[in-house]
Amino acid sequence: MTKTKLSLLMLSLTLPGYSVADELREMQKNPDTWVMSAGDYANTRYSQLSEINLDNVQDLKMAWSFSTGVLRGHEGNSLIIDDVMYVHTPFPNIVFALDLNNDGAIKWKYEPKQNYDETVPVMCCDVVNRGLSYGDGKIFLNQADTTLVALDIETGEVIWSDKRDDPRTGATNTGNANVFKDKIIVGISGGEFGVRGYVQAYDMNGKTLYKAYSTGPDDEMMVDPQNTTAMLQPIGKDSSLNSWQGEQWKIGGGTTWGWFSYDPDMDLYYYGTGNPSTWNPLQRPGDNKWTMSLFARDLDTGVAKWIYQMTPHDEWDYDGVNENILVDQKIKGKMRQMLVHFDRNGFGYTMDRATGELLVAEKFDPSVNWADSVSLKTGLPDRVAKYSPAANGEDTQTTGICPAAHGAKDQQPATFSPKTGLFYVPTNHICMDLEPFEVEFVAGQPYVGAEVNMYPATKDNMGNFIAWDAREGKIVWSNPERFSVWSGAMVTAGDVVFYGTLEGYIKALDAHNGRELWRFKTASGIVGNVNSYKHNGKQYISILSGIGGWAGIGMTNNLENDSDGLGAVGAYKSLSNWTSLGGVLSVFSL
Amino acid sequence: MTKTKLSLLMLSLTLPGYSVADELREMQKNPDTWVMSAGDYANTRYSQLSEINLDNVQDLKMAWSFSTGVLRGHEGNSLIIDDVMYVHTPFPNIVFALDLNNDGAIKWKYEPKQNYDETVPVMCCDVVNRGLSYGDGKIFLNQADTTLVALDIETGEVIWSDKRDDPRTGATNTGNANVFKDKIIVGISGGEFGVRGYVQAYDMNGKTLYKAYSTGPDDEMMVDPQNTTAMLQPIGKDSSLNSWQGEQWKIGGGTTWGWFSYDPDMDLYYYGTGNPSTWNPLQRPGDNKWTMSLFARDLDTGVAKWIYQMTPHDEWDYDGVNENILVDQKIKGKMRQMLVHFDRNGFGYTMDRATGELLVAEKFDPSVNWADSVSLKTGLPDRVAKYSPAANGEDTQTTGICPAAHGAKDQQPATFSPKTGLFYVPTNHICMDLEPFEVEFVAGQPYVGAEVNMYPATKDNMGNFIAWDAREGKIVWSNPERFSVWSGAMVTAGDVVFYGTLEGYIKALDAHNGRELWRFKTASGIVGNVNSYKHNGKQYISILSGIGGWAGIGMTNNLENDSDGLGAVGAYKSLSNWTSLGGVLSVFSL
Ligand SMILES: O=C(O)c1cc(C(=O)O)c2c(n1)C(=O)C(=O)c1cc(C(=O)O)[nH]c1-2
Ligand SMILES: O=C(O)c1cc(C(=O)O)c2c(n1)C(=O)C(=O)c1cc(C(=O)O)[nH]c1-2
Repeated sequence: MTKTKLSLLMLSLTLPGYSVADELREMQKNPDTWVMSAGDYANTRYSQLSEINLDNVQDLKMAWSFSTGVLRGHEGNSLIIDDVMYVHTPFPNIVFALDLNNDGAIKWKYEPKQNYDETVPVMCCDVVNRGLSYGDGKIFLNQADTTLVALDIETGEVIWSDKRDDPRTGATNTGNANVFKDKIIVGISGGEFGVRGYVQAYDMNGKTLYKAYSTGPDDEMMVDPQNTTAMLQPIGKDSSLNSWQGEQWKIGGGTTWGWFSYDPDMDLYYYGTGNPSTWNPLQRPGDNKWTMSLFARDLDTGVAKWIYQMTPHDEWDYDGVNENILVDQKIKGKMRQMLVHFDRNGFGYTMDRATGELLVAEKFDPSVNWADSVSLKTGLPDRVAKYSPAANGEDTQTTGICPAAHGAKDQQPATFSPKTGLFYVPTNHICMDLEPFEVEFVAGQPYVGAEVNMYPATKDNMGNFIAWDAREGKIVWSNPERFSVWSGAMVTAGDVVFYGTLEGYIKALDAHNGRELWRFKTASGIVGNVNSYKHNGKQYISILSGIGGWAGIGMTNNLENDSDGLGAVGAYKSLSNWTSLGGVLSVFSL
Repeated sequence: MTKTKLSLLMLSLTLPGYSVADELREMQKNPDTWVMSAGDYANTRYSQLSEINLDNVQDLKMAWSFSTGVLRGHEGNSLIIDDVMYVHTPFPNIVFALDLNNDGAIKWKYEPKQNYDETVPVMCCDVVNRGLSYGDGKIFLNQADTTLVALDIETGEVIWSDKRDDPRTGATNTGNANVFKDKIIVGISGGEFGVRGYVQAYDMNGKTLYKAYSTGPDDEMMVDPQNTTAMLQPIGKDSSLNSWQGEQWKIGGGTTWGWFSYDPDMDLYYYGTGNPSTWNPLQRPGDNKWTMSLFARDLDTGVAKWIYQMTPHDEWDYDGVNENILVDQKIKGKMRQMLVHFDRNGFGYTMDRATGELLVAEKFDPSVNWADSVSLKTGLPDRVAKYSPAANGEDTQTTGICPAAHGAKDQQPATFSPKTGLFYVPTNHICMDLEPFEVEFVAGQPYVGAEVNMYPATKDNMGNFIAWDAREGKIVWSNPERFSVWSGAMVTAGDVVFYGTLEGYIKALDAHNGRELWRFKTASGIVGNVNSYKHNGKQYISILSGIGGWAGIGMTNNLENDSDGLGAVGAYKSLSNWTSLGGVLSVFSL
């Protein structure tokens, strides 16, 4: 019997309120483990460990390392459960169980067989995978080819698997599976191929419970015209259909490839939807609901409680999929159940997560220029015509738009410290020129319809790592970075905040003031997320290196033209002076 | 003007005895740099640095790391010259110049274009490359496809290149180019394809000066029947031709893929020749001279001074290519100019490097059983019929032969400490069953003619790391290892000896007694060699990780059958429980 099983057994004896179906709710409280991608349901990525702290972080040193044997972008982070670390790779999505009691020797390895030619060419932004999940004695792998696999945690053997979609239509997967209570929630990628986004819920045995689309008829979206709200009002009948011309919604994107969070007390989970397809806004008049939106859904029924569209009728590829961090703080003297979301469009949103009320919406990067502000009343951004490709028309280049299509922040997740009350956010500081053009839809073919060129917003400063006060919508401090910060951050009870850089540094800053306390050059550029755990009473910090993701696509795919890689290649050209492809887990301790 | 250029200029002003043509002779004396593969002409791999020593080595920690972006076996080691580190990779043989003043940022990168399909399939033992060399302001890369390239040390631009052989005939390259004084000496691989071995000398501008074969007519071998000696006697006319049946010597192997050393006072360089082809001994009666032999050649004329054949008429693939370490020690009260060679066949040879006199020949692994001893008078091994495939005949399996075809030591180079007077030797402790069979020669096709299965000589102990006294031919201490030690060792003036293991550990032992003082688990299994340098007054230790080479071929080539990979797969099967493919440079300091 493993320790987990034992402790759960004891839990269920001592805490009658929690059934085994809630095991994750308890496990995430143990700071020695890292039991889900974000560390907790709330997506705070906060570690309660404080052995490593402001006084000694400069003595941090590498404890051991592990090459995954795969190159290209290593996003996400490992899980640590019962002295075993679970490490995943980008395509081909290998899973390693590493024995922490034996210097990381390989306990088991699972390597799925996926069709390369069907899958890899239709992945928009490198062949990344954002991680594994745990539940009910199983490790869940969400493969690139949309197969969800449940592996026996002890042996790595397949318990069940389900291929839920077809990469030949452009549908792929990069997100992790999300285990919430007794369900597994998965999303889908393919917004650059006209894939219609959805979330799908499974039970622990692989049975599909429901599927809820981002766009289309109310029933297929699992919305209730009367009781599902937006800006505190019922959304009404056919809210999505009414916001599209004809049947464009069927190929209209709104994919669901980002991070999911969950409030077990409200039994609501939160996620965002991606860009409307095609990127060319003139081919899809209307608000294109509910792309670019945050959803709050009831875990058990799947029905949406509320929706909020950040960027109606997107013109810039500002996917709304970034994480939603759930914390309770006082705003203007009143305790609020907050949801905090740093959107690609450059606004940091603070909402009431029970109701979807918009509390704060402010720019978290000073370069943002496509909109002047967001109205807290209507929820609508106040657009600047000069930076509107829709206003400027097809086959016309709109220049100087900030942020670029990468957004002021992409998938790289932020972290929150209950001690400082601040959010720590890896950001992009890049702008673009964009020229939309007419594109025809062919299933399984790119459906982009825009030529993009990205470049730094400020010379030699393509990113910042910032501290953010979500109660007021203010930057507290900001550390400039040479490149976009494409790595997820973690803050600890030691008041140290960690993140990685595209050059390959892992850095530790003082959470109070952003002062750099320590850095280490890892094997390759970092697009993975930092986490922490304790083993034999000692705190460890771990991070995956391996340059890639959309920012690193020039390197992973050997692209040369500035506008290749959906416009990203030019901006990140000098990355290859700093680092080289890799796939290495680095573990640090005092 | 770089520091090197400056210091050389000063040298030529102050030391009229040395011309620029001898720059390496001076540069290798500077312990802060690592200017050639083995650190010095004598191949001692000794570092005079002692900041890291017995008292503090347990505090060693990783300073930085660098992923090469290439998987598979990373043999060899970096060079360090004037604050720049030069790192090479296995096929496709990328070269990186890393700026040590900038945490290893990439100063320049050179990536040759080589024909994969022509080259990789005819490399016997993974696509390794053993390193770069420096001379005359150039970095020399000896590519897999047999192209020798001279790169501008400042820019990485190609100054000249010469493709000297044809992979379509099975001729490839894994060895480093050897710069000795004003010449570059290169060898060739392909003993498993019937390639006729040779060495080739270039001047610094890429002009071929001579080419000397291992087998064949005297003039093509550049031997002088009267003045070239073996066992102190003239070899006589047609010494090679007389030892082969018919024209078998033309496809008879004797390749030259190992390490070369040089004595600048004698102007002699030393290297060994590989196995006679085919492995089936019954297809090539005779001594098969001068395969399996050590050569001492005059650098300028190319003419052989002496030759010594360790394994006449080889029956086990005991290539004679291992390094020859040149040291002066007292033997029985008399100072000798020694050459010390740990042969694949399991005997450690001590010779007089001026004359080729055989001084000592003793087993350096206790399992060696194919011969009882080697006569110091005749130089001949005393074979044991039971372990002779030739005696047992074709299509008959000879079992329990020790060592296996990997030898009691393969290419992994040993190191020598002038302080302790001992050699530190990474060894194999493996045996095999071998069954020879008739094979037909087809140019460019494998010409092996034997089925081999390797296995540990002792359960859970496939290698040892030993200290050896070459004056007496005695093991001083021996540390058991789970796997063969396929990494090159380095001993320092701090009396610490370093080496890597196939699981990926770099270890530091007390040179006096072999006690383990420190270990660190690097990203992947280690088949590279340790070196050391000083930067800004601080000592660093560096090592390449990346499982591969013949020992790792099951992993690099995804082989499953025990007898695949020329018999290596079965023995190393459990390696994949310990490590995974990679290509990472790790740098350590206090
Ligand atoms: O619309 C989509 O379906 C989709 C999918 C993905 C993905 O799955 O990685 C990305 C994006 N869009 C995207 O817009 C984007 O900026 C992006 C960055 C990355 C990354 O991992 O670096 N993926 C994606
Ligand atoms: O006969 C040859 O030409 C030849 C070449 C090589 C090589 O070039 O790597 C090896 C061998 N033989 C060989 O016998 C051998 O044990 C071996 C080990 C390795 C290695 O790098 O791990 N290469 C070679």
